[in-house]
Amino acid sequence: MVVRAAVAGASGYAGGELLRLLLTHPEVEIGALTGNSNAGQRLGALQPHLLPLADRVLEPTTPEVLAGHDVVFLALPHGQSAAVAEQLGEEVLVVDMGADFRLEDAADWEAFYGSPHAGTWPYGLPELPGARAALEGSKRVAVPGCYPTAVSLALFPAYAAGLTEPEAVIVAASGTSGAGKAAKPHLLGSEVMGSMSPYGVGGGHRHTPEMIQNLSAAAGERVSVSFTPTLAPMPRGILATCTAKAKPGVTAESVRAAYEKAFADEPFVHLLPEGRWPATASVHGSNAVQIQVAYDTAAGRIIAISAIDNLTKGTAGGAVQSMNLALGLDEATGLTTIGVAP
Amino acid sequence: MVVRAAVAGASGYAGGELLRLLLTHPEVEIGALTGNSNAGQRLGALQPHLLPLADRVLEPTTPEVLAGHDVVFLALPHGQSAAVAEQLGEEVLVVDMGADFRLEDAADWEAFYGSPHAGTWPYGLPELPGARAALEGSKRVAVPGCYPTAVSLALFPAYAAGLTEPEAVIVAASGTSGAGKAAKPHLLGSEVMGSMSPYGVGGGHRHTPEMIQNLSAAAGERVSVSFTPTLAPMPRGILATCTAKAKPGVTAESVRAAYEKAFADEPFVHLLPEGRWPATASVHGSNAVQIQVAYDTAAGRIIAISAIDNLTKGTAGGAVQSMNLALGLDEATGLTTIGVAP
Amino acid sequence: MVVRAAVAGASGYAGGELLRLLLTHPEVEIGALTGNSNAGQRLGALQPHLLPLADRVLEPTTPEVLAGHDVVFLALPHGQSAAVAEQLGEEVLVVDMGADFRLEDAADWEAFYGSPHAGTWPYGLPELPGARAALEGSKRVAVPGCYPTAVSLALFPAYAAGLTEPEAVIVAASGTSGAGKAAKPHLLGSEVMGSMSPYGVGGGHRHTPEMIQNLSAAAGERVSVSFTPTLAPMPRGILATCTAKAKPGVTAESVRAAYEKAFADEPFVHLLPEGRWPATASVHGSNAVQIQVAYDTAAGRIIAISAIDNLTKGTAGGAVQSMNLALGLDEATGLTTIGVAP
Amino acid sequence: MVVRAAVAGASGYAGGELLRLLLTHPEVEIGALTGNSNAGQRLGALQPHLLPLADRVLEPTTPEVLAGHDVVFLALPHGQSAAVAEQLGEEVLVVDMGADFRLEDAADWEAFYGSPHAGTWPYGLPELPGARAALEGSKRVAVPGCYPTAVSLALFPAYAAGLTEPEAVIVAASGTSGAGKAAKPHLLGSEVMGSMSPYGVGGGHRHTPEMIQNLSAAAGERVSVSFTPTLAPMPRGILATCTAKAKPGVTAESVRAAYEKAFADEPFVHLLPEGRWPATASVHGSNAVQIQVAYDTAAGRIIAISAIDNLTKGTAGGAVQSMNLALGLDEATGLTTIGVAP
Repeated sequence: MVVRAAVAGASGYAGGELLRLLLTHPEVEIGALTGNSNAGQRLGALQPHLLPLADRVLEPTTPEVLAGHDVVFLALPHGQSAAVAEQLGEEVLVVDMGADFRLEDAADWEAFYGSPHAGTWPYGLPELPGARAALEGSKRVAVPGCYPTAVSLALFPAYAAGLTEPEAVIVAASGTSGAGKAAKPHLLGSEVMGSMSPYGVGGGHRHTPEMIQNLSAAAGERVSVSFTPTLAPMPRGILATCTAKAKPGVTAESVRAAYEKAFADEPFVHLLPEGRWPATASVHGSNAVQIQVAYDTAAGRIIAISAIDNLTKGTAGGAVQSMNLALGLDEATGLTTIGVAP
Repeated sequence: MVVRAAVAGASGYAGGELLRLLLTHPEVEIGALTGNSNAGQRLGALQPHLLPLADRVLEPTTPEVLAGHDVVFLALPHGQSAAVAEQLGEEVLVVDMGADFRLEDAADWEAFYGSPHAGTWPYGLPELPGARAALEGSKRVAVPGCYPTAVSLALFPAYAAGLTEPEAVIVAASGTSGAGKAAKPHLLGSEVMGSMSPYGVGGGHRHTPEMIQNLSAAAGERVSVSFTPTLAPMPRGILATCTAKAKPGVTAESVRAAYEKAFADEPFVHLLPEGRWPATASVHGSNAVQIQVAYDTAAGRIIAISAIDNLTKGTAGGAVQSMNLALGLDEATGLTTIGVAP
Repeated sequence: MVVRAAVAGASGYAGGELLRLLLTHPEVEIGALTGNSNAGQRLGALQPHLLPLADRVLEPTTPEVLAGHDVVFLALPHGQSAAVAEQLGEEVLVVDMGADFRLEDAADWEAFYGSPHAGTWPYGLPELPGARAALEGSKRVAVPGCYPTAVSLALFPAYAAGLTEPEAVIVAASGTSGAGKAAKPHLLGSEVMGSMSPYGVGGGHRHTPEMIQNLSAAAGERVSVSFTPTLAPMPRGILATCTAKAKPGVTAESVRAAYEKAFADEPFVHLLPEGRWPATASVHGSNAVQIQVAYDTAAGRIIAISAIDNLTKGTAGGAVQSMNLALGLDEATGLTTIGVAP
Repeated sequence: MVVRAAVAGASGYAGGELLRLLLTHPEVEIGALTGNSNAGQRLGALQPHLLPLADRVLEPTTPEVLAGHDVVFLALPHGQSAAVAEQLGEEVLVVDMGADFRLEDAADWEAFYGSPHAGTWPYGLPELPGARAALEGSKRVAVPGCYPTAVSLALFPAYAAGLTEPEAVIVAASGTSGAGKAAKPHLLGSEVMGSMSPYGVGGGHRHTPEMIQNLSAAAGERVSVSFTPTLAPMPRGILATCTAKAKPGVTAESVRAAYEKAFADEPFVHLLPEGRWPATASVHGSNAVQIQVAYDTAAGRIIAISAIDNLTKGTAGGAVQSMNLALGLDEATGLTTIGVAP
C-alpha cells in the first residue's frame, strides 16, 4: 500500500512532528506540504531537523495543492479546518489535528471557542472504550487535544470500573511546544527557563470540556473536572497528575486490577510496575503513554499519573495511530514506544 | 545590635542560601561554619558563589565550635538537630531548618520519620494565624518545610474564612535544589533536564502531615490532604497548585476578600492583581510569596496557586525572617521581595 | 547624598536588571521610568519580579519626563541614545547602556552599525588600564557590551604584560537574555532549551570591534580577533573562552603573576585559585567576574576563561559601577559579589 | 541476515543509546545485555525509555554470557575493553565504544590514560579519508570519542585541502550525558541547569591527542590543537567551534568548495546552505552531523562549526554505522538523519 499524504500547516510544531513520523512510516509517501505565511520557503530553514525534506518548498494551503492525496492532515489554527475539509472529497481521509471536530456538544464549543460548531468527527483516542471501532474505516478523524489525551487515559479506567465519584482534580505540566511556534514574549526562553507558571486557571482552558466529555462517557454520568495546566521549562512532554475521589469499598487491589485490565492489550499504554512512576523524559519522541496509579487511603483519592510526549502521542503520533486504523493498517505502523532519553 | 551567627551544615544548599542572606544582613556577623564530611575544606570550593566567604574553612559540628554565638542555625539531616540543640545553652537562639521540631503530633512524626519525636518548637511561618506572636522572643524556632510553606500560605485564608470543605487536593512542582546536594543518579542534570516526574505519590511525602497540621489549625477541624510533589527541570522554585472544595454560598468576591484580608499587612506575601498568575522566576532568590486565587464555579472548587523560592522563603529566608522576630528585629531585615529574573 | 535616577527603557531586560540594582542602592531614589510601546502599563505586569515597583506606571520617553534627575540611564535600542542625550543638560549624568558611544573609530561604527557615528564617551569598564580615571567625575558614560566586558577582562592582562602575540581566538556562550525581550521565533523556549547554536560567525558580531579596541589598547598594537558567540540554554550568564598565542619565553608562572597583579585590587574581579574554573551559575545576579587562566604549553596558547552575569556586570551592574565612579561614590556601592546559586 | 548482538555495559548512557538504535535496526537481534553493579536488575528500571526491553534482566559481564553473538559492543569504562575483547573469538565483531583502541601512539595513550597501551583498531569514523576501507570487513572497531567526532569532521576538509596552517583552536560545548551516568555532585541538575562551565582546560582533556591524530593525518603534518571543552545545560548534543589559521591565498570560495567536495557523498554529514548555522537541537537523536564553515578574512581564520548528538553520531550511532560497514551492510542501515526537535 502506498498512502500519499499531504500536510497542511507543515511549518509549526505539530506539522513538524507529523512529518518526522511520516518520514519513517513504511506505507506513507509524503506529498504536498503547505504553509500560510511561510509558503515559498524551504523546509530546511523551517524544520532544520528534518534533513530528508530540507529542499522541499512549502506551498499555499489551497484545494488544488491538497488535491490528489489519500490522506490530508490539517495542522491549522482552530476554526480553520472545516472550510478546508469541505473542499476535500469524501473519499479522502481527513485527519484534523485542530480542535474543530472534537466536541460533541455545540454549546460547549461555542462557550470555549466563540464560533459556530463545525460538527463532530470520530475521536482519535483508540484506547477509550468504543473509540477504536469508530475509527476503523472512517474518512474523518478528530485528533484529541494533548492534555485530554494524557488525562483521559490516566483516569478513564477508574470511571469505567466505577471506582470513583464523578469529580476529578487535575494538574498537568506541559512543555512549551504545546503553546506553539508563534513568537510571544511569555514563551521566550529567557522567560520559561527556570520557571513554572500556571495559565488558564479556574476552568477556562479549552481542553476542559473535552476531558469532561471523555470522562463522563466512561463514567456514564456527568463528571465535574477542575483542571489546571502549567507551563514547565522543557520543550516537550506532559505530566498529568489526575486525582478522583474513591467510592466506598475501593481497595488498592481493585484499582490496580482495573488499570491492568484497561490497558492489557494496548500497544502504546504502559502501566508501570508498582513502585515506579512515569517521567516525561522516558516518552520523549515516542508514542508511548506511561501510567501509574495509587490509592491514597488517608485522603480517600485515587491518583493516576500519566506521561506523554505532547507532540507525539499528544498530537502527531495520535494522528498517525488513528490514520492507521482508518486505513486498515496495523495500528502501530510507523510508531514506536521507544523514547529518546536522556 | 551585632548578632553573631553560626551555621551548622554550611556546605549544602540550605546552608549556602542562608549564608547568602546573612552576608547582607545588617545586624549579623557570620561566625562558625561547620560541615561533616566537608570539614577542613574552604568554602570557595563548596559554595563558589559566596565570594566574600571564599577563604573561610569549614569546621566540624561540635559543641565547642558552635559555642559563643547568639544564633545557631541547624541545616542538618533530619533527626540530628535535637542532639546538637541540647548541647547549646537555653539563652542561645536555635533555628532548626530540619524537620525535627515541626510536628505537634508524635504519632505523625514517628509514622513519617521512623524515629522518636524530639518535640515541638514555635513554627517559623509568621503569616499563619497566631504564629508571629509565638516567634517573638522565642529561643527556639522550627523552620517549616518548603512545600508546607507554599501550600499553607496558599490555602489557609480559605479555611480560616470558612470558605472550603475540610479537604484539599494539591500538586506542587519543585526545583531540584529541594532534593539536596547529595549526588543521586535520578538528580543528575541528564535525568532532570527536559523531564517532569512525580515522587512520594499517594500520601507518603513527609511534608503531608505538616500541611494537614497547618490547614487543620486554620479550619478548626481535621483537613484531609491529597498531596503530590513533582520534580521540575529548574534549580529553584516551587509552584503549588492548591484546590479545595468550596462550601455552598461561596462567591468569587468572598474568596477574593478573604485573601486580601489575610495578606493585607504581610510584608512578603503578594496577592497578585486579578488576571495575573504567579511564576517561580519572579521570586527567584527573593523571600516573596506570589499568590493568586480563583473560584471555578463549574467544578465548585477554589484554586489557590503560590510561587516561592524553595531555598529562600521556603528555607533560609523563612529562617532569617523568624530569627528577626525572635531577636526583636524588624521582620524584614536583610530580606527582599525583589526577585532575580529573567 | 540622594541621587535621583531615571531609566529610559524600563521594560526590557537591561532596564529591569538596572531597576533591580537601583532598588537596593543606598544613595539612589528611583525617578521616572519610561517605555516606548509599553508606556502607560504598570511595571508589575512587565517586570513581575520587582514587587516594590509593581504599581509604578511607565511614561513615554520624552525630555519632559526625563528632566529633573541627577542621572539618566538609557536602555534604548542602538542608535537612539544620542538624540535623547542631546536633550539632557550637560550637568546631568547620562549613562548609555546601548552601543552608541562605545567605539572610538567612526569607520568601525559605520561598518558594524550602518549609521553615522555619534561620538565616544568614557568607557565604563573601570578595570581596564586608565579607564577608572576617565570615569571619575564624568557626566557621560558608555557602558560596554556584555561580551566585550567578559572578553576584555579575561585577556587584557596577557596583552598588557606583553605575554601574547597580537591575535586572539574567542568563543563565548551567552544566556538568552543577551538577545533581549523582543519575541523572535528562534528565541522561543522550545527552540533554545536543549540546544546550543552559534550566530554572528566569521567576524560579523557587533561586539568584535569593541573587543579589538580594548585589547589593542592593552597590547599597544592592533590585535586581531576571531570571535564566535553562541547561544546557550540558560537565561543569564556569559562564559568566555579566550585564547591567545603565547610569546616565546612565557611560563605558567609569568602568566599567573600577570593576572594576579592585574586584579589584585579589583573589588569585582576574582581570579580563582589554581585548579578551579569559573561557572556562570556562581556569578548569577552578581557583579563579580570569575576568571581563571592556564598556559597550554603543547599548543603554545594562553587560555583565559571568564564568567559574568551578562545582565549584571555585563550591563546593568557595570552601569551602576560606573555611575558610582562618576558621582564620586564608593565604586562598589549597591553592588555585590555574591551570586544566587544553585 | 540476522546479526545477534550483545551489549556489555547496557545500563549507562552509551549502552542505552545503542540499544535504542539496535531495537529498530532491521538486521539485528538483541542478545545478552550485561552490567556490572547493576547485574540482576530489570532494564525497565535502568532505561525506562526502552519499553520493549523493560523485562530484560542484566547479566554479569562474563565470557560465557557474551559468547555466541555475532557482534559484541563494549560500553565499558576506559581500560576494561582489552581484557574482555581477548576472551572473545577472532571471528566475533567487537565494537569498542571506549577509548582503549583509538590512539596509534602508545606514548600518547600512556600520557593521557596512565596505563599500558592495548593497541590500535580500525577507527570508526568512516568519513575520514581512508577510514571507510579499513572498516569494511574488519572484526575490530574502535569507536571515536564524541568530541573528536565533532571536531575531526568539522576541520579535516580544511587540512586535507591544504587551506590551513597546522594549528587549531577549538572550543566545544557538550550536553551532560557526555559525562556519564555516575552520580557526581558537579553533574547534579541543580548545578548544571543555568550554568556553563569549562573543564579539562589547557590541553589536559583525553580527547586532545585523538583530535591531533586525526587532523595531523589529514594535514600530512603534525597539527597543534588548543582544545577547551565546556559543559552546557542540556542533556545531549555537542557544538564544536573549530578555527584554524588560513594559509595565504585562501578564499571563501576555496573553503566552501573543499567542504562541498569532502561531504558530497556522505550520508550523514550535512553541509548547511550558506547563511545557516547548526544547532544541536536539530540533530537530537539522529546520526546526522550538521556543519557550516566561514572564512573570517579580518582575523585570517577559517571557522568550522559542527553539531552532533554526542550519544548518537558521537557514540552509539557511530558504533552502528561502523558495525554496518564491518558486516557488509548498507552503512546507513538502522540509522537516521532525522532529529527529534523541538
